[in-house]
Amino acid sequence: MANNQGESGLTSKDYYFDSYAHFGIHEEMLKDEVRTLSYRASIYNNKHLFQDKIVLDVGCGTGILSMFAAKSGAKHVYGIDMSNIIIQARKIVDDNGLTDKITLIQGKMEDVKLPVDKVDIIISEWMGYFLLYESMLDTVLVARDKYLAPGGMIFPDKATMYIAAIEDGDYKEEKIDYWDNVYGFDYSSIKSLAIKEPLVDTVDARAVVTTPCAFREIDILTVQKSDLTFTVPFKITAARDDYVHAFISWFDIGFTHCHKPVHFSTGPHAKYTHWKQTVFYTPEAITVKNGETIEGVLSCSPNGINPRDLDIVIDYSFNGNHGSIKEHCEFKM
Amino acid sequence: MANNQGESGLTSKDYYFDSYAHFGIHEEMLKDEVRTLSYRASIYNNKHLFQDKIVLDVGCGTGILSMFAAKSGAKHVYGIDMSNIIIQARKIVDDNGLTDKITLIQGKMEDVKLPVDKVDIIISEWMGYFLLYESMLDTVLVARDKYLAPGGMIFPDKATMYIAAIEDGDYKEEKIDYWDNVYGFDYSSIKSLAIKEPLVDTVDARAVVTTPCAFREIDILTVQKSDLTFTVPFKITAARDDYVHAFISWFDIGFTHCHKPVHFSTGPHAKYTHWKQTVFYTPEAITVKNGETIEGVLSCSPNGINPRDLDIVIDYSFNGNHGSIKEHCEFKM
Repeated sequence: MANNQGESGLTSKDYYFDSYAHFGIHEEMLKDEVRTLSYRASIYNNKHLFQDKIVLDVGCGTGILSMFAAKSGAKHVYGIDMSNIIIQARKIVDDNGLTDKITLIQGKMEDVKLPVDKVDIIISEWMGYFLLYESMLDTVLVARDKYLAPGGMIFPDKATMYIAAIEDGDYKEEKIDYWDNVYGFDYSSIKSLAIKEPLVDTVDARAVVTTPCAFREIDILTVQKSDLTFTVPFKITAARDDYVHAFISWFDIGFTHCHKPVHFSTGPHAKYTHWKQTVFYTPEAITVKNGETIEGVLSCSPNGINPRDLDIVIDYSFNGNHGSIKEHCEFKM
Repeated sequence: MANNQGESGLTSKDYYFDSYAHFGIHEEMLKDEVRTLSYRASIYNNKHLFQDKIVLDVGCGTGILSMFAAKSGAKHVYGIDMSNIIIQARKIVDDNGLTDKITLIQGKMEDVKLPVDKVDIIISEWMGYFLLYESMLDTVLVARDKYLAPGGMIFPDKATMYIAAIEDGDYKEEKIDYWDNVYGFDYSSIKSLAIKEPLVDTVDARAVVTTPCAFREIDILTVQKSDLTFTVPFKITAARDDYVHAFISWFDIGFTHCHKPVHFSTGPHAKYTHWKQTVFYTPEAITVKNGETIEGVLSCSPNGINPRDLDIVIDYSFNGNHGSIKEHCEFKM
C-alpha cells in the first residue's frame, strides 16, 4: 500500500471503531477449525447440558456459537455484539430458520438489558493474542456477574498461559537486526522500537529449546478483572545445548463442564490456530546447556493510557556454563 | 483475535487515523525490494538529474527516498508526511547526518507552506492496491500543481494498469463458495458480500489464461484528478482452452526521465511485490477456447461516501464455442 496520509473522514473512523463489521475477520476465525470445532464439540456433544437452557453468547459475531447452542436444544439464545456484523448475523440466523430460538442484540454488554434476569450458560470466544491482548474477557466477566445464574456454566471455563524459550537467530536477524542497515542507512532508532514489540507469529515446535512453564491459570467462573494484572515467577529448563533468542507464550483453553472435557492448545506443538504464538525477543542471545535453567518474573498489566494495550515485563536471570545474564525487558503490545 | 467489541478510546482512534505511525507498515514497504530498489536505481543512477536540485518527497514515511535524493547530490530535500512516523524519520535523518540536507514537515500537502516557491523534482511512492485504492496520487497532483517548476520532473512519471483473466477454481471455492455451508449453516448472505470485494493476493503466472490488456495509462506530469474517474474498454484473448473464474488487475510503473529508464511491474509474471495483484471473481465460470475473446468495459470511480474507497464495475460479454455470457459485476474496495 502507498504511504498515504491517512486523510479519511468519518466513514473510516466508523470502520475502525467497528473493524469487526467486515466479514473478513470473521472468515479468519470461522476457518480456524481448531477454534470452531472445539466450540462445536463442547456444545454438540453436550446436548444434555444445553437442553432447554437459556444461553448468552457474548460477542456473537456472525452467530455461529449461538446457532450451535440453538441446535443443541437451548430454549433460547441471546447473542450480544457491539459491531454491525450483527446485522449480517440476523440475516444468517433467519436464513437458517433459527429466528425464534436466537435473539441478537446490538450493544455493549455493560449497557444492554436482556429480556431475562438470568442465563444458565454463557458461551463466548473472547480470547486475543497472548490470550489477553484486545481480549473481550472483561466483557465476559461483566456478563457473568450480571446474568449468570448460581450454578451456571461458562464455555470455555479454563485458560492456561505458558512460556518457553526458542532458538530463532535467523528470523531475529530479519526482524530486529534488519534495522541496523536499511539500504545503507542507519535505522537503529526503529530497532529499539521493534525489539519492544512482541511478534505474533507461528513458531516451529523444533525451535523450542526449553521446557514450558504454565505461568497463569484462569478460571473464568471465578476470576476477577483485577486478576488480569499480575506478576508471576517462571522457571524453564533447557532440553538441549542451544542458543535462546526469544521467549514465546501461548495458551490452552478448556471446556471442563463437558461430559468429556474438550481442550485445545495454541502452542507450537499443536495444530495451527489464528492466535499463533507470541514472541518476545531478548536483547542478547543466551547460550544454554542441557539442564540449565532460566528463571524469571513476568508482569502483565493493561496500559495506563490505552487499557486495550498490554504492558508486559520479563525479568530473567541465567547462570550457566557460558556465563551469567540478568535482564529487564519491557514490551508493549 | 477475539471478537472484541471495539471499545477503545481516543488512543486507538488516533492510531487508526495514523496507522502509518507504526513502523510495521513501513517495514513491509522497505522490504519490498522491487519497489525500493527501483526507486533507488532511478535516483542513484541519475545523479546528473539530482545534482543541486530542490526535491520534494510527498508522503516521505521513514525518509528513505529523501535520503536517496540527498545522497544523489540534491541541494535540499523537503519531505512531507501527515503521519507521526515523521518523528522517527527526523531521528533517522539525523542519525545519518543528513539534517542539513533534508527538512521534514508534518502536515497535509494542501496545508503546508514550503520555504521555497518551486521544486525541481517531486519524488513519491503513492501507489495503492489496484494502483488507485487508498492511493496518494491526489496529493502528488496537489504538490505538482502548487510547487513543480516548469520543466520539473516527477519520479515516477508513468503508471499503466492491466487486466487479464485467470483460472482459479480451487481458491474461488475456498473464498466464495465456502459461505454456502459453514459448519452446516447457510452463510450465503456473506457470499453475496464476498463476491463484490476484490481480493488482493498473489496470482500464479500459470493461472493466467488470456493476453493482458493495458486499459489505462497515467502520465503523472499531466494527469488531472478528474481523469482518475474513468470508463474504458478492454479486450482479452484466451491463450489456451481453459476456464475463467476471475479477472485480475495489476500495474507497471515507469521512471522515464532516467538516463536509462527504470520500470517495474506488479504483474503475476513479475517478482513479488507487496501490491500483489487484485482479483475480481466472476459470478459464473467462463469456458474459453484458445483464441476466443472476452470484451468488456471497466469503470472506476471514488466511492461517493468514502472517496478513498473505489467503486469498480466490470461489464463483459463473451461469445464462444461453449456459449454466450453477458454480465454486469459491481465491486467495491
